[in-house]
Amino acid sequence: MVLQKPKGTQDLLPGTVEKWQYLEQKARDVCRRFNYKEIRTPIFEHTELFQRGVGETTDIVEKEMYTFRDKGERSMSLRPEGTAGVVRAYVENKLYGEPEISKLFYIGPMFRYEQPQAGRYRQFHQFGIEAFGSVDSTLDAEVIALGYLFYKEIGLKDVRVEVNSVGTPEDRALYRSKLLEFLTPLKDKLCRDCQSRLERNPLRVLDCKVDQGHFEGAPSILDSLSEASSAHFEKVREALEAMGIPYSVNPRLVRGLDYYTHTAFEYKAEGIGAIDTVGGGGRYNGLVAQVGGHDQPGVGLGLGLERILLVMEAKGIEIPPSPQPDVYLIALGEQAEMKAAELLFQLRSRGLTAEKDYQSRKMKAQLKSADRLQARYAAILGEDELAAGNISLKNLADGQQETIPLDRLAEALAEKK
Amino acid sequence: MVLQKPKGTQDLLPGTVEKWQYLEQKARDVCRRFNYKEIRTPIFEHTELFQRGVGETTDIVEKEMYTFRDKGERSMSLRPEGTAGVVRAYVENKLYGEPEISKLFYIGPMFRYEQPQAGRYRQFHQFGIEAFGSVDSTLDAEVIALGYLFYKEIGLKDVRVEVNSVGTPEDRALYRSKLLEFLTPLKDKLCRDCQSRLERNPLRVLDCKVDQGHFEGAPSILDSLSEASSAHFEKVREALEAMGIPYSVNPRLVRGLDYYTHTAFEYKAEGIGAIDTVGGGGRYNGLVAQVGGHDQPGVGLGLGLERILLVMEAKGIEIPPSPQPDVYLIALGEQAEMKAAELLFQLRSRGLTAEKDYQSRKMKAQLKSADRLQARYAAILGEDELAAGNISLKNLADGQQETIPLDRLAEALAEKK
Repeated sequence: MVLQKPKGTQDLLPGTVEKWQYLEQKARDVCRRFNYKEIRTPIFEHTELFQRGVGETTDIVEKEMYTFRDKGERSMSLRPEGTAGVVRAYVENKLYGEPEISKLFYIGPMFRYEQPQAGRYRQFHQFGIEAFGSVDSTLDAEVIALGYLFYKEIGLKDVRVEVNSVGTPEDRALYRSKLLEFLTPLKDKLCRDCQSRLERNPLRVLDCKVDQGHFEGAPSILDSLSEASSAHFEKVREALEAMGIPYSVNPRLVRGLDYYTHTAFEYKAEGIGAIDTVGGGGRYNGLVAQVGGHDQPGVGLGLGLERILLVMEAKGIEIPPSPQPDVYLIALGEQAEMKAAELLFQLRSRGLTAEKDYQSRKMKAQLKSADRLQARYAAILGEDELAAGNISLKNLADGQQETIPLDRLAEALAEKK
Repeated sequence: MVLQKPKGTQDLLPGTVEKWQYLEQKARDVCRRFNYKEIRTPIFEHTELFQRGVGETTDIVEKEMYTFRDKGERSMSLRPEGTAGVVRAYVENKLYGEPEISKLFYIGPMFRYEQPQAGRYRQFHQFGIEAFGSVDSTLDAEVIALGYLFYKEIGLKDVRVEVNSVGTPEDRALYRSKLLEFLTPLKDKLCRDCQSRLERNPLRVLDCKVDQGHFEGAPSILDSLSEASSAHFEKVREALEAMGIPYSVNPRLVRGLDYYTHTAFEYKAEGIGAIDTVGGGGRYNGLVAQVGGHDQPGVGLGLGLERILLVMEAKGIEIPPSPQPDVYLIALGEQAEMKAAELLFQLRSRGLTAEKDYQSRKMKAQLKSADRLQARYAAILGEDELAAGNISLKNLADGQQETIPLDRLAEALAEKK
């Protein structure tokens, strides 16, 4: 029987993997410009970290985690998102003690046991950033700007930014009571999920995907913000305007996780049909303390790479082509083959991309391979050439052929670049 | 309580992560030259894959895997090595049907529950390549050469290559009986591990790390090779010599995994004290069929990045410094701060690395930060400069300062690169 990959996972093969390399390289480059440094945390963590850092009553932690006991009987979980591990590392490694604030990014696999569907996998990949140590509103705006620039750089030029403020826990308590006053009389009309949300987290009811019809006239969280919270949000918007980043305020945007304070934001792209959220984030001033550290503020974002690729494909956005191989070396005869091994290693040692046949095929088949690989040149080494110390070099774009001394091959190919 | 990372795992933080980025970039570049393409397979696989592809009676599968049941009650395991998943993907995606042979590389985390020690972690990282579809001896040599060139490129210039041939299963059956004849009379003198190995895998007894004293005069596997196996090995060595790769033949080298056929090799580096194996590989002509696919030959290598970093550190090999930030922008006053947000985003959109303060510190402290970050320039925007539409630009290397129009800033910084 042929073994298969686990359900909901992917093999990224040549032909597809280049898109991933491209996205990652762009993410790294944008982070470099904003001076965010990479951090890598383990693929699995103590389960307790996610209970504390994501929330014990969230769907993620309650239903979707890959949790197991290691051979030392500790409960571990594959990370379902990137922030908790980064916060843990920030605290454990005492990065708050450094003179500058910490501006960190990560790219990597995350794991959630969900029903697989288009753009949603059980092993999925996120690019995220986290900035710790500052309550400055311009930092919120910078985080939003970084994501926006990333989308622009990969060709998603019409990604829209939605922002909101969810205030402080105190602001939210006030808003919660106002909202319950509005929603409770409507309870029977709400969808079943929202009926249960009403008790646990009424703010998310307004985010209902099933029926938005009942919420006209609902109170806005923006009217429940304290003066300081309003001022923070005001300054975030001012900074976004200064940067020229188009955005709209969506007072119903609350994000899936409960740890956000003040700024919350999402990026929307038109994908296949519906408008898709391709990323989002916000400020989380209580999270670091909650995970067990000093009380340090934070703000970050997370973008789902599978979703982004789906949107890119829907929009027909192509990535730049890979560089062509420099030469395909065709050796005819056993002696020529050993010489070819030597030459190939020389070329590769000098940084050139060089390929050969490994199946003892006829010259015609080898030339076809050279074409298929889009090599710039075919270099042909027969017994006659070898005896004369020469090699034939064929330009595969224009068909022109010349004979050059063997020991000039590397130089000739480098010059012709 | 502060939560900690799982035992045996690492946080790779700024200051260290750059070494990883460097190794990966070098690995990718060397693979590009040899025309190996990246493949990414899932972090976990069906446990059965590793039972089949690594071997049910190996220590790895018996004792060291992170195995768990997913919520669908399937037995999954975090991958303990890279080859099995790549073989599975090769078969499942029918890559053997493509016109060229498959030359693939991977870089990523692997997982084994072992006792952590210097350079050995429970989450560790490997760079590996696999080539499927050819029995050509020069391919074995190419794989060895790729690893050798990688070490050279990262500054490990004296890595030694040891090669051997373990022949076909038939060759090994013959050798096994000769070896048992030699070893059985010595049984009581062997270490305890070797006594049990004697039944299960006598070839590995000669690899004993405890006591090599008894093995003088032991038969060599090279004397049990068939003519075809000898010829294959002969040609591998010939190709290595043609490439100028120094190597020695070690007839006792058998590698930890049982799936090797013909060529087996290891790279040795002098580390802290003892000679360390920093990588190895070989040919595995039966493995693809064993995992459930067509009978296709394969050859590959795997290098442990933690070990390599350990050796680099022991040798004091430094990686090239990261590029300097282009500018640190100092804004004084609230109006200037909004202008700074705009300018920063402009600079970053143009590809420059630009940073600012996020803690409302005094100018002196900000200048100190600019120095600490090794920024090329500090750009100072006070209320006076803002009113005049200017900005001060200070070269932090020579202290020279000039005033330029605000709208010239990006160009000026780009020109001064």
